[in-house]
Amino acid sequence: MKRNLLLTPGPTQIPPELCAALGKPIIHHRTPQFQQALKDAITGLKYVYQTTNDIYILAGSGTAGMEAAVCNLLSAGDKAITVEAGKFGERWTELCKAYGADPQVIEVEWGKAVQAEQIKDALKKQPETKAVFITLNETSTAVLTDVKAIGAVVRETNAVLVVDAVSGLGVVDLQTDNWHADVVVAASHKGFMLPPGVAFVSASPKAIKQINASTSPRYYFDLRKAKKVVDKPDTPFTPAIGIIVALVDSVKFFQEKGLENIFHHYARLAEGVRAAARGLGLSIFTDESCLSNVLTAINIPGEIDGTKIVKLMRDTYGISVAGGQAQLKGKIIRIAHMGALDEFDLLTGICCLEKVLKVSGYSFKLGAGVSAAQEIYNK
Amino acid sequence: MKRNLLLTPGPTQIPPELCAALGKPIIHHRTPQFQQALKDAITGLKYVYQTTNDIYILAGSGTAGMEAAVCNLLSAGDKAITVEAGKFGERWTELCKAYGADPQVIEVEWGKAVQAEQIKDALKKQPETKAVFITLNETSTAVLTDVKAIGAVVRETNAVLVVDAVSGLGVVDLQTDNWHADVVVAASHKGFMLPPGVAFVSASPKAIKQINASTSPRYYFDLRKAKKVVDKPDTPFTPAIGIIVALVDSVKFFQEKGLENIFHHYARLAEGVRAAARGLGLSIFTDESCLSNVLTAINIPGEIDGTKIVKLMRDTYGISVAGGQAQLKGKIIRIAHMGALDEFDLLTGICCLEKVLKVSGYSFKLGAGVSAAQEIYNK
Repeated sequence: MKRNLLLTPGPTQIPPELCAALGKPIIHHRTPQFQQALKDAITGLKYVYQTTNDIYILAGSGTAGMEAAVCNLLSAGDKAITVEAGKFGERWTELCKAYGADPQVIEVEWGKAVQAEQIKDALKKQPETKAVFITLNETSTAVLTDVKAIGAVVRETNAVLVVDAVSGLGVVDLQTDNWHADVVVAASHKGFMLPPGVAFVSASPKAIKQINASTSPRYYFDLRKAKKVVDKPDTPFTPAIGIIVALVDSVKFFQEKGLENIFHHYARLAEGVRAAARGLGLSIFTDESCLSNVLTAINIPGEIDGTKIVKLMRDTYGISVAGGQAQLKGKIIRIAHMGALDEFDLLTGICCLEKVLKVSGYSFKLGAGVSAAQEIYNK
Repeated sequence: MKRNLLLTPGPTQIPPELCAALGKPIIHHRTPQFQQALKDAITGLKYVYQTTNDIYILAGSGTAGMEAAVCNLLSAGDKAITVEAGKFGERWTELCKAYGADPQVIEVEWGKAVQAEQIKDALKKQPETKAVFITLNETSTAVLTDVKAIGAVVRETNAVLVVDAVSGLGVVDLQTDNWHADVVVAASHKGFMLPPGVAFVSASPKAIKQINASTSPRYYFDLRKAKKVVDKPDTPFTPAIGIIVALVDSVKFFQEKGLENIFHHYARLAEGVRAAARGLGLSIFTDESCLSNVLTAINIPGEIDGTKIVKLMRDTYGISVAGGQAQLKGKIIRIAHMGALDEFDLLTGICCLEKVLKVSGYSFKLGAGVSAAQEIYNK
């Protein structure tokens, strides 16, 4: 049997306990039994989100949640600010344009993070801005954005702050309320360790006012419909029952372990992977100032094709990591360290990377990566 | 342990084999392994759809598929025809209005089906109609629509025929190509016996032309994006991997059993339930001319509250049937006979209904419903 280890930035490894929950017989959604599950799921989500805001649950992938944010907050012609520092930041721009909104784009070199000062300047330049769209963890570049600093800037204006936290929530700290993140989008298949198919959207009172004012066409994504039934709790359309029932167990895990401990766990896993890369003489793609603990982007020397590394690891050994996207295709590999993973999973992944680098002709001392990671994990 | 038997019109009972598939470890979606699954799923879907048209797979519930149909086919100001013969027909009208389109509504008495002649007249009255929206099985009234007859009318015009087949596909006959159904929307949680969370949308060449011409804002639902990658096969956004992997087993079941045999099986189950109702002295809500084999709507005598029947069956005995919706609340109960069910499941449901009718004070000979159904099932 080939191993099936996901060190990918979504979907992430699902723990056996949640696999079992996903295989349970289905229950009907218009029942007290499901209502209780929905209630427990939302309570747990609020804990992970660190919020008292409403959280709406949509059947759809992360992009569905992002589109819900855009079409509910913006009307055609509205001004917005987006940040293009990677593939997922670009998605905000595309979504704004799809609805006829007018985004001012802040371009940031890939591997670096947007600075709060840049957002401040953009808001000054365009004071009628309705919404600022950022990305907590830019998966394409492994960059972490300073949401706290940006939140402090945006809260002073009439604009709402919208955070794509799809790949970061529950892995790195995001204090929705304390940091004034008005709308936070997340999904089931990253930190929550479930299959893709469910998106979450939180909305602050400031955001809800704007949601009620938007004239963009919408029905399935209409958060006004979701708001009406959120306290029941209920969903306007048939929910993804299977995933939500398993989500109850997922959020319980967060509540039992404690967010701080989980963030610490992932930080440790990340530190080990970065040490391994350096131990192998490979540099980290992401700027030192904005390293994310969600995943690590490792530069692959010019003479080696990163795409082949990924393919070999996956097709020969059943260990999945991600390659580079767009202009980074073939130039980096990305190892995610979120989901149901421990240090031994990462050490396995590093052993496999070493094996594949050897056959690719890269010169290094076998074990140099693994031992560097071990040093961290044995501290 | 309480029984958990779903005789509801979605979600439907999931067979243990598919529950097991849903509990499998997850695989990544950008892999040859998942690509094969997607290919097999689409091939099987085309068999069930009886089509050679494209079929796009969306992460979302049935309404997501319906919205994809509307926003891809219609632009603001476009003329459409919708049929309001129940709750789900009304959804087409609401969706058209959400996108600023202008639906001419054909109102039909609940319990009856729209006639092809009415569609013909409406099209004559409004020759610039872009799309006609109908419902294969109107779940709120247990009415089956004559798609074949309507298809023959619409194909003679420039309008496309859009069929909400969410609750009927794979349960009753729908010959997408032969009957000229340009766009057919279905979902995972009815005939396919899987959890909700995946919608399917087929599109004929006539529909694709219109999809390319629509100016409605869309991104996640943009079928142009789905069309670009459908032959790879791939999905533009992260798919609901877990459900799609299980869908491969679901469609294989259809291919192995044969559509004709499956339709016959459900027709037999339906006949038994209708006989049981009559055996109990209860009348069928739906007009004799348009009975659906997906579910049966049974009138509950005025002195008894149908809502209480449903509640008692579910909360005391774990057997779920549906009540009436909107103006039918409390007046009917709806017993679905689709999903992983056989005659013994239906007989169990009828026994439970008899039990609950007795305590509700309804006067009848115990066993009158069950034995009437047995007569059918033992033929």
